[in-house]
Amino acid sequence: MSAATLRTCFTPTVSAMFFASDNWAGAHRSIAERLLAESAGFAPAYGAGELDKQVEARFCEIFEREVSVFFVATGTAANSLSLASVQRPGGITFCHSEAHVIEDECGAPEFFSGSARLVAVDGEAGKIDPAKLSAKIANFPEDALRHGRASAVTITQATEIGTVYSLPEIGEIAAISRKRNLPLHMDGARFANALIALGATPADMTWKRGVDMLSFGGTKNGCWCAEAIVFFDPERAREMPFIRKRAAQLFSKSRFIAAQFDAYFENGLWLDLARHSNGMADRLRAGIGASNAARLAWPTASNEVFAVISKRAAKTAEEKGAKFYAWPVPAATPELVSEGETLIRLVTSFATTQADVDGFLKCLAA
Amino acid sequence: MSAATLRTCFTPTVSAMFFASDNWAGAHRSIAERLLAESAGFAPAYGAGELDKQVEARFCEIFEREVSVFFVATGTAANSLSLASVQRPGGITFCHSEAHVIEDECGAPEFFSGSARLVAVDGEAGKIDPAKLSAKIANFPEDALRHGRASAVTITQATEIGTVYSLPEIGEIAAISRKRNLPLHMDGARFANALIALGATPADMTWKRGVDMLSFGGTKNGCWCAEAIVFFDPERAREMPFIRKRAAQLFSKSRFIAAQFDAYFENGLWLDLARHSNGMADRLRAGIGASNAARLAWPTASNEVFAVISKRAAKTAEEKGAKFYAWPVPAATPELVSEGETLIRLVTSFATTQADVDGFLKCLAA
Amino acid sequence: MSAATLRTCFTPTVSAMFFASDNWAGAHRSIAERLLAESAGFAPAYGAGELDKQVEARFCEIFEREVSVFFVATGTAANSLSLASVQRPGGITFCHSEAHVIEDECGAPEFFSGSARLVAVDGEAGKIDPAKLSAKIANFPEDALRHGRASAVTITQATEIGTVYSLPEIGEIAAISRKRNLPLHMDGARFANALIALGATPADMTWKRGVDMLSFGGTKNGCWCAEAIVFFDPERAREMPFIRKRAAQLFSKSRFIAAQFDAYFENGLWLDLARHSNGMADRLRAGIGASNAARLAWPTASNEVFAVISKRAAKTAEEKGAKFYAWPVPAATPELVSEGETLIRLVTSFATTQADVDGFLKCLAA
Amino acid sequence: MSAATLRTCFTPTVSAMFFASDNWAGAHRSIAERLLAESAGFAPAYGAGELDKQVEARFCEIFEREVSVFFVATGTAANSLSLASVQRPGGITFCHSEAHVIEDECGAPEFFSGSARLVAVDGEAGKIDPAKLSAKIANFPEDALRHGRASAVTITQATEIGTVYSLPEIGEIAAISRKRNLPLHMDGARFANALIALGATPADMTWKRGVDMLSFGGTKNGCWCAEAIVFFDPERAREMPFIRKRAAQLFSKSRFIAAQFDAYFENGLWLDLARHSNGMADRLRAGIGASNAARLAWPTASNEVFAVISKRAAKTAEEKGAKFYAWPVPAATPELVSEGETLIRLVTSFATTQADVDGFLKCLAA
Repeated sequence: MSAATLRTCFTPTVSAMFFASDNWAGAHRSIAERLLAESAGFAPAYGAGELDKQVEARFCEIFEREVSVFFVATGTAANSLSLASVQRPGGITFCHSEAHVIEDECGAPEFFSGSARLVAVDGEAGKIDPAKLSAKIANFPEDALRHGRASAVTITQATEIGTVYSLPEIGEIAAISRKRNLPLHMDGARFANALIALGATPADMTWKRGVDMLSFGGTKNGCWCAEAIVFFDPERAREMPFIRKRAAQLFSKSRFIAAQFDAYFENGLWLDLARHSNGMADRLRAGIGASNAARLAWPTASNEVFAVISKRAAKTAEEKGAKFYAWPVPAATPELVSEGETLIRLVTSFATTQADVDGFLKCLAA
Repeated sequence: MSAATLRTCFTPTVSAMFFASDNWAGAHRSIAERLLAESAGFAPAYGAGELDKQVEARFCEIFEREVSVFFVATGTAANSLSLASVQRPGGITFCHSEAHVIEDECGAPEFFSGSARLVAVDGEAGKIDPAKLSAKIANFPEDALRHGRASAVTITQATEIGTVYSLPEIGEIAAISRKRNLPLHMDGARFANALIALGATPADMTWKRGVDMLSFGGTKNGCWCAEAIVFFDPERAREMPFIRKRAAQLFSKSRFIAAQFDAYFENGLWLDLARHSNGMADRLRAGIGASNAARLAWPTASNEVFAVISKRAAKTAEEKGAKFYAWPVPAATPELVSEGETLIRLVTSFATTQADVDGFLKCLAA
Repeated sequence: MSAATLRTCFTPTVSAMFFASDNWAGAHRSIAERLLAESAGFAPAYGAGELDKQVEARFCEIFEREVSVFFVATGTAANSLSLASVQRPGGITFCHSEAHVIEDECGAPEFFSGSARLVAVDGEAGKIDPAKLSAKIANFPEDALRHGRASAVTITQATEIGTVYSLPEIGEIAAISRKRNLPLHMDGARFANALIALGATPADMTWKRGVDMLSFGGTKNGCWCAEAIVFFDPERAREMPFIRKRAAQLFSKSRFIAAQFDAYFENGLWLDLARHSNGMADRLRAGIGASNAARLAWPTASNEVFAVISKRAAKTAEEKGAKFYAWPVPAATPELVSEGETLIRLVTSFATTQADVDGFLKCLAA
Repeated sequence: MSAATLRTCFTPTVSAMFFASDNWAGAHRSIAERLLAESAGFAPAYGAGELDKQVEARFCEIFEREVSVFFVATGTAANSLSLASVQRPGGITFCHSEAHVIEDECGAPEFFSGSARLVAVDGEAGKIDPAKLSAKIANFPEDALRHGRASAVTITQATEIGTVYSLPEIGEIAAISRKRNLPLHMDGARFANALIALGATPADMTWKRGVDMLSFGGTKNGCWCAEAIVFFDPERAREMPFIRKRAAQLFSKSRFIAAQFDAYFENGLWLDLARHSNGMADRLRAGIGASNAARLAWPTASNEVFAVISKRAAKTAEEKGAKFYAWPVPAATPELVSEGETLIRLVTSFATTQADVDGFLKCLAA
């Protein structure tokens, strides 16, 4: 079977109700075409080419300050190497108990950090509770040899469950971190979606609020593979070239990452794509909110929607070709889901269409 | 400056004498177009899609047996994770003293292997000397707690200096390795170039000669990022999914790696590309061999050519736009280069043209 | 100040109310004298001597089966290297939320295990709750790449808060572990105290109940430095010589560890010492139970006693020279301690005397 | 068989010709008795006691400056953790090609350093050749991402083959290291023997010549287990408490290490012991030099003697109870040993007697 045949399989004539994850989507046409255009010619390898430098400069513009940028292959690499760069022996990184770093990365953050531990902090709506963070950090006094040492804090924006930290909320976490000199990292796998949800600028949502390091994700929002680590204090990035190289994350033909980012940023494409996917999620939210056959599990603001639907409706939707994942019912709120119901996650992407959303909503009503 | 402008910079009207490295080239048009085509539609993430499976099956065909295949982001990752998969506490991997793993990977092989050591073995023509390998291995008896333990052997095919192990030579290294149950790894960053040089089949050059694991490189030969680890005994690959995930090397949109390999293998494109670049190197070798102003430093068989030229000629070539690296004169053969001369490395690629080669040769004669 | 003077400081004429920890005590005279005796003569280094072998054989007798024994320098080393020996990439070890491995070892278990994660399981009385363990393990299905992999379970006997798993309780944890093929490790820093508390044999409390690896601690019970890792299946210990050596835990004059264990085991000294310290704890428990000025925080069975006393009494006791640590009030039971009171931990040792205990009880009554 | 019986085995009535290693000896009586004395009483654990602090102060006196001192369990730990404290990603430590760190520690230095590589430097007489060190370091320019980064230099004093760096030689290595800001570590497993050989003070042989970190060994010279890491710049030791604790090298009853050092230093015992063992080696050297049946393989200055003897003499000596190791003939000097001869290493210790030496010499003559 050729790839062309395959693509047909995944492009149904009427609608493609693919809500399993935003990384099931392909790449936006502008980005794919830029890759094609970039395929000709020659350029220095390992990030030394002009395009790499241009894109790095573009990052500085976008963040309104000098930043250090490091392309890597995956979001897991971006998170893990950011945190590794601030590692200390016996170090501890505080994250939300549902964070990607602790739930979905198979121990990579610890592996690259010389076994620094992740300590989970609870908090409603997928966000670290500031009081609980303070309390957890207090368990690790600076001179307490046995427990290990508080070394970093990481938050996810947008969160794993579709919510978004407000700017003051970020500031509050940053203030707590700064009291103990803990660098604050932001996992921005869905950074653009959060920006759109807040109507904030990249600078506002990061360093102006006290964020020190950012995993800047492009892959979920229309690139095929474009992840970057951004250091807001270049001095802190001093060791990163070696950390990245030793981690086998330095692309030889790095310019193809740069090319994706170049197209991603051109004329604000990245924000348009996030606006689109957030908008599709809004449409889903509205439709579910208005439905008798479903309800929102909790409010979300980005491109993820969590809904409680009847098992029957879930089955119907799947039979009609919809793709989505069941989501575990949070242990703290078992009452969220009644018998005969199921909790599902729906993720929209740049490639989601109104027809996809409407088709899915129609399944619910059926 | 837009990317379009940039490309112009690197596409001179007359000829592009870019011999710095095969990873200065872009991506072959067929591969780039396949990426473009693949950008539409949806597919399961993390390697679970149809295309990933098809390409894995293609690897089995190519190698004439069941193999386990793992895509990774870089050749360094392929080497490091292969070796990590056979790690033992206090383990030691034997490699040639000029191997990429020991010279150019910033400690990644050790890092991923839980600090397993690399022990360099000398040998002429960039190839491990079998007798010296035996002697080195003998320094590490199986029960010698203090010295560390022989754990793996790795060879590079084609080698870092453009030579190629013959099939019997591979078999000899494999036989020595097998005596001590040491898995044999092949760094195939330029695997296709070696195949063409030998006129061998992939099976012949690997498992039929006793190779256990292969870093199969596509990037240097026309892909933009397509590297795979191939295990000839799938049983040995049991831990690899976890090793790769923990190493932050599992692409979410893995199908874009698969798509590159799909186009790479289609109608034997990969072999055509290697045949082309080897052919361009042949043309360089012939031209240099016939030149009064240059000579070959040593015989090579793949797409790398090492030449001794006058410093004046080097300067002329550079002024005319040629790109190449000076290469350190091997400590063992200082007489190779006389005063006023310099040793250079010239690497051809799928994108090298006859005009490039002839233009360069003309510089020498000037 | 000479060491002799120092000892005077710490040997008050009337009574030494040192309840801070059992590792504040020195070494039992028989053990110290054996060390002195062993200081003469010569013996092969690195554990190859006769005495090492004899003591290994003694371990086999004590555990009524063939075992593999590895001396190490600290309890942390014993725990960390045991767990490292069953490491898998992305591995996860389940421990109680108050376990020494997660609370007091500065990340050593993760460090030696190639960053394997510790996952805390709650449970009353300092013991892993079997149902909660099952539930936690179920979060990590064998094929779930992202979450990491269940790799081991560790329990502490006696626990950190002075309680003791009953034999059926150990068996239940072992049965849950075995269902998923998870090796079961026991941190026996206070192994002898637990044995006495249960009236069990070493075999009963370990492999007969499904324990696979044991950190056998002698230091807290009268040795000055004698810790051993015991593997009940020698096959599982195959890699341990290398793991230990690479961990810098192989003593050159290993026979001095062996000598301590030799004296420790002679004529059942080790059980006598534990019986004594448990007995002193019984006396403390009885005295506190009968006191108006204090109460037991929770029932304990080994040589640790947790008491709630008035802050005034605590101050008095300290002024009279008593040494003990305040203990954090468990978050789950804040009502345990009223205003004006404090929770303290009292640890008895082989060196604790009736006069010490009675002296302390008198302070409470004062 | 009791330990008493065992000792008898190893204390032949006439003479104990144990030259296998200085760590076959036991502990000096004064040190063993101090341990016995220290066994009574109580003291704070984990190095917080008075005796620990006193001994640390004694180290400051001995080295004539403020130093930071960390007790560890083994020489391998001292070396590995010293080097780990100056680790950088992709780091490289330069050592002599016969150094203990690279030959005899099963990869521990790399393991604790996050996989920093050891690069061997040749040099005659077991000592790093300064010119070769400079050349090796030059292979790793500070900004060369691929090769890894020069991070430390380590020398062994006395060396593995019994020779001793002169003070100017140490200064020369230090000057080369300092040019690239590479911390200089000294493996002082036989530090006292080197001091005596040179007639130097501890300060002279270390920081006054540019040494930054020292593995200070007491075990081979009469303690049973007393190793310390000494930092001459306490600022550099900032992370060491955590590095040591995470490495499972913090003794709970740390005072028993302190007690050994206390006795070791008292009235210059340590220097007397080294003077004795060096003297016994002198006697061996003189005897062998004067013998017709043996010759010195190379000049040595510490307590190690390397001799070429006839295989027959070797057999005779072994039959008479002498213990020693055959030593591999250096690859560079195969002519050192003729047919029918063997190269052996003889190590004297504080416990070696004149009778032992004379007994052995007599075997040669037989």
